[in-house]
Amino acid sequence: MRKEELGESPVVITQDGSVGLVETRYYNFADPPDRFVLENGRELGPITVAYETYGELNKARDNVILIEHALTASSHAAGKNSPEDKNPGWWDVMIGPGKAVDTDKYFVICSNILGSCYGTTGPSSVNPETGKPYGASFPIVSIRDIVRVQYQLLKHLGIDNIRGIVGGSMGGMQAIEWALEYPDMVDSLLLIATAAKSSPQSIAIHKVGIQAIMDDPNWNSGNYYGSDIPEKGLSIARMLGHITYLSDGWLWEKFGRKQDDPVEIKSNLNSKFEIEKYLEYQGSKFVQRFDANSYIYIMRTLDLYDAGEGYPNLIESFKRIKTKKVLVVSYSSDWLYPSYQSHELAEALEANNIDVSYNEIDAPYGHDSFLIDYKKLNPLINSFLNSL
Amino acid sequence: MRKEELGESPVVITQDGSVGLVETRYYNFADPPDRFVLENGRELGPITVAYETYGELNKARDNVILIEHALTASSHAAGKNSPEDKNPGWWDVMIGPGKAVDTDKYFVICSNILGSCYGTTGPSSVNPETGKPYGASFPIVSIRDIVRVQYQLLKHLGIDNIRGIVGGSMGGMQAIEWALEYPDMVDSLLLIATAAKSSPQSIAIHKVGIQAIMDDPNWNSGNYYGSDIPEKGLSIARMLGHITYLSDGWLWEKFGRKQDDPVEIKSNLNSKFEIEKYLEYQGSKFVQRFDANSYIYIMRTLDLYDAGEGYPNLIESFKRIKTKKVLVVSYSSDWLYPSYQSHELAEALEANNIDVSYNEIDAPYGHDSFLIDYKKLNPLINSFLNSL
Repeated sequence: MRKEELGESPVVITQDGSVGLVETRYYNFADPPDRFVLENGRELGPITVAYETYGELNKARDNVILIEHALTASSHAAGKNSPEDKNPGWWDVMIGPGKAVDTDKYFVICSNILGSCYGTTGPSSVNPETGKPYGASFPIVSIRDIVRVQYQLLKHLGIDNIRGIVGGSMGGMQAIEWALEYPDMVDSLLLIATAAKSSPQSIAIHKVGIQAIMDDPNWNSGNYYGSDIPEKGLSIARMLGHITYLSDGWLWEKFGRKQDDPVEIKSNLNSKFEIEKYLEYQGSKFVQRFDANSYIYIMRTLDLYDAGEGYPNLIESFKRIKTKKVLVVSYSSDWLYPSYQSHELAEALEANNIDVSYNEIDAPYGHDSFLIDYKKLNPLINSFLNSL
Repeated sequence: MRKEELGESPVVITQDGSVGLVETRYYNFADPPDRFVLENGRELGPITVAYETYGELNKARDNVILIEHALTASSHAAGKNSPEDKNPGWWDVMIGPGKAVDTDKYFVICSNILGSCYGTTGPSSVNPETGKPYGASFPIVSIRDIVRVQYQLLKHLGIDNIRGIVGGSMGGMQAIEWALEYPDMVDSLLLIATAAKSSPQSIAIHKVGIQAIMDDPNWNSGNYYGSDIPEKGLSIARMLGHITYLSDGWLWEKFGRKQDDPVEIKSNLNSKFEIEKYLEYQGSKFVQRFDANSYIYIMRTLDLYDAGEGYPNLIESFKRIKTKKVLVVSYSSDWLYPSYQSHELAEALEANNIDVSYNEIDAPYGHDSFLIDYKKLNPLINSFLNSL
């Protein structure tokens, strides 16, 4: 297994270039009676997919890069949707003219995953059969289902070859599944802070979050649309999630034991440590932007993922892959998707004679390093894409 | 810093000897108007302390071993309270005739901590001023307060010298605080899987648990006694706590990705992974035995602990310690009280010319190793106590 050789790259990577104003578009398919059959046999339709594209598709239609998002992100990966937007898309540091995923060269597509709440069909969408939101009657969807919906989008866009699929965390699982499900379409994978299957520890953490949402009286068996949302339960789930995205070391560095008031905190349960206020802030921000049922469903989608399922082991499963080159990146302080999981992944790929570059980046920020520490990640991605 | 030399111990340690039937006793003090003044200035009284003793106090009154319990344990550390008891005390593998803490030699005392719910005064105790349980009007107590209450008990028992104080996790913090607060009384400390201060990560985890309890409508600002208890919130808090007591590696080994039904789980949100059912079981067991307010208060007591508080650093703070010998033990897989915290502790002790033996035990069970992996811990404790 090799490490990505950075050497003296002839390309200067910028972090400044922006794709500018972008519009989220929507593709509808699977209209009844031709509904979409899910991995578990249930049928769903119609389905809407929200997506954005950056850069231009070349004539040969062979410059496509697919961006796969993680648990709570959206199709809005780069640029701004309106001039008033305060923040650009969630991976704007990575995608743009002259950036690691260079939109002067590539046609970049990012779509919102099935089950989410940013324009793609999910539990908060209206079930045409009842005229009401699906809620907890929404079917459980798998990573494979998510990928098969993306395939429908690409078919609609007239694309049958993908130069590279870039995915961090849950996005990496989608990239793996693309290579397993559509082996002839995928030239390369860029798998960042991800795993071939969810660990029991991550399932356990999701369990606590799911239970907190379901125990919130406002959850009401998933039927809270149009009334008070289960914001307390959702906030608990998010606070816990947030702890797992960071690291012990980074929490020491960023918050330590800083407190509101060292005297007051000894006698008043409402006086807080700074880390507590930070978590409260993260929780309250999240409940304003994300649907509780989507959070439950997507955590479950993650729990259920196992790229080796149905095969004696991961190596056997990966025999289906025809992708020639894979970049695997993990982070030293990531304890949610620890490096050993990336290493297992890289080894199973290499055992199938795939050209794998495995790189562990030393970064203190935990799992979220892949969104934060782009200065170390960008050169790896740029170098890998240039080598294709 | 040395490692405990086990060599060829002349003593055969058993794990079978039992102290037999033991009775929990109660000591009452701080009757108004002579109430107990807490570290934060608030007054409390009367105070009851539940305690058990094993073995016999010798004539010189110098064979006392103090056992300090962790978050949710009790004074019932060894033996059985009645012949019908299914399980012995929480550290029965460690304490008894011929065991690591040998009750043929030592007079062993374990008391329930202030703020708990196993006989010692806590939030569920009746406030004599109102005739009702304290609930959330109970004062926040510190590790120092807990230790000062234990001091009152020892004074009552006529004891002014302690051969050794053994504490795991939060129990270790009490042991440290004993040596700081009553330096002339403590001959040795045995600090297991503990830390000189709570990390921001552990504070963050407690925050999620405390919030889950307080968000449960049954919590009712702490006034739930006599009506429905906040068992959903308490169960969430306990499930999360339980995850932090174990380890990623151990969860793989014990549960892996085992499921109720590999087909059903793909389409039914009520179908579960085994790790989820295990957590549910732990949660439901816990709500039957522990008071939600006590859990909130004791987590807060832990959060607030910093043995270096009021001093430029831990080394300066430890200048108060006169204890001559200290055993420090950590576990390789403990991510709640990671080895670096034990190492910091050992270094600060050694910088004060205290004879420190630091041992990291390789065990897979995470923080709970100190309760599980006694076969590795017992010889260290036995050897250390024999060397005094």
